[in-house]
Amino acid sequence: MKLGKVTGRVVSTVKVDSFEGIKLMLVQPLDEKLVPHGDPIVAFDTIQAGVGDLIYYETSKEAGRVLETTMNPCDAAIVGIVDNLEVEDEK
Amino acid sequence: MKLGKVTGRVVSTVKVDSFEGIKLMLVQPLDEKLVPHGDPIVAFDTIQAGVGDLIYYETSKEAGRVLETTMNPCDAAIVGIVDNLEVEDEK
Amino acid sequence: MKLGKVTGRVVSTVKVDSFEGIKLMLVQPLDEKLVPHGDPIVAFDTIQAGVGDLIYYETSKEAGRVLETTMNPCDAAIVGIVDNLEVEDEK
Amino acid sequence: MKLGKVTGRVVSTVKVDSFEGIKLMLVQPLDEKLVPHGDPIVAFDTIQAGVGDLIYYETSKEAGRVLETTMNPCDAAIVGIVDNLEVEDEK
Amino acid sequence: MKLGKVTGRVVSTVKVDSFEGIKLMLVQPLDEKLVPHGDPIVAFDTIQAGVGDLIYYETSKEAGRVLETTMNPCDAAIVGIVDNLEVEDEK
Repeated sequence: MKLGKVTGRVVSTVKVDSFEGIKLMLVQPLDEKLVPHGDPIVAFDTIQAGVGDLIYYETSKEAGRVLETTMNPCDAAIVGIVDNLEVEDEK
Repeated sequence: MKLGKVTGRVVSTVKVDSFEGIKLMLVQPLDEKLVPHGDPIVAFDTIQAGVGDLIYYETSKEAGRVLETTMNPCDAAIVGIVDNLEVEDEK
Repeated sequence: MKLGKVTGRVVSTVKVDSFEGIKLMLVQPLDEKLVPHGDPIVAFDTIQAGVGDLIYYETSKEAGRVLETTMNPCDAAIVGIVDNLEVEDEK
Repeated sequence: MKLGKVTGRVVSTVKVDSFEGIKLMLVQPLDEKLVPHGDPIVAFDTIQAGVGDLIYYETSKEAGRVLETTMNPCDAAIVGIVDNLEVEDEK
Repeated sequence: MKLGKVTGRVVSTVKVDSFEGIKLMLVQPLDEKLVPHGDPIVAFDTIQAGVGDLIYYETSKEAGRVLETTMNPCDAAIVGIVDNLEVEDEK
């Protein structure tokens, strides 16, 4: 999984049938300093993440497994909200 | 999923059998400012996206699931058209 | 799928059993200007693409599906030859 | 698989159900000189890796297979600790 | 698949059970000039590749298929040794 920040919502009327009723959020990937890095991701959200939350998301065919049915062409999903990163000094 | 813009059509006669009858579009990936970034994608389109549309697409083995049969070697599909991005200020 | 140009053939005697009899081509990925970009790919070819052809290929676990048996560790396959790219002006 | 160094722990209360009870570690990818390179990964850990360990991890839908149930949206897992890299001079 | 050069061996005692008895090699990805490019890969080897060999490897969930059991979290495997690259002049 990777670290990201929820930056917005994606409003979409025309879409594949299996995406009906799914909440889609815009996620900005972050680097090791939690600085934005890379292109934004459009991800499923089933854990009620809010804009501004530090989250971790995954990007693979398993993303659809956050739903009860996995037969959908989803490749990105928010899987958890980060409470705290306990990072130790590198040596 | 990622954000992209439909930039054209791909005409192809010689192809694997499972791609017969599929509409293939050329999609330009976009960065967080919606500026073109990265190499173009050749994607399945089953939602009748048009050239110029802001869309989101996915790139994984699940892409074939936009079709009724998933037994094809497809790794990219347009899954929705973006009506609006509700992006909030980062802090 | 991505755009590429077939640049050569890969000759390989020692390989995993499931690759026996498969034609392997060297493919150079292309950017939006059809200029070579990125590292070359070694891809299955079942559509008789030739050196110099503009093709589209896919890179995922579905690549093996160009064969009748999919139980092989293949992650890249040429899936079609491009006749024409109908690209419209971006605005 | 890729080489990485465990740099910390990820504390997360709100997450998808299938992640309950899983230890999540922060992993920094390394380049060929074992220098940090690229964005950090949030990975499953079932082998009790500790902060500072040189490990190898994998990032694909198979990551969930480190657990007995694989029906979870995990795409990164630590799969082993490196004792030694026996690298020979390139010629 | 991608081109790489075997640069060493990875010695690892603590690992997930399904990796027991597997030979792990360090592989350096190569660009189109066969110059090292990108971060090293830790790959399964079942074809007895040696250090210094020019090989092609694949990186996807199918990598585990080089083994009889595919239920392991492997995402990279050496699948063949290159005898010769027949590259033609680009025009």
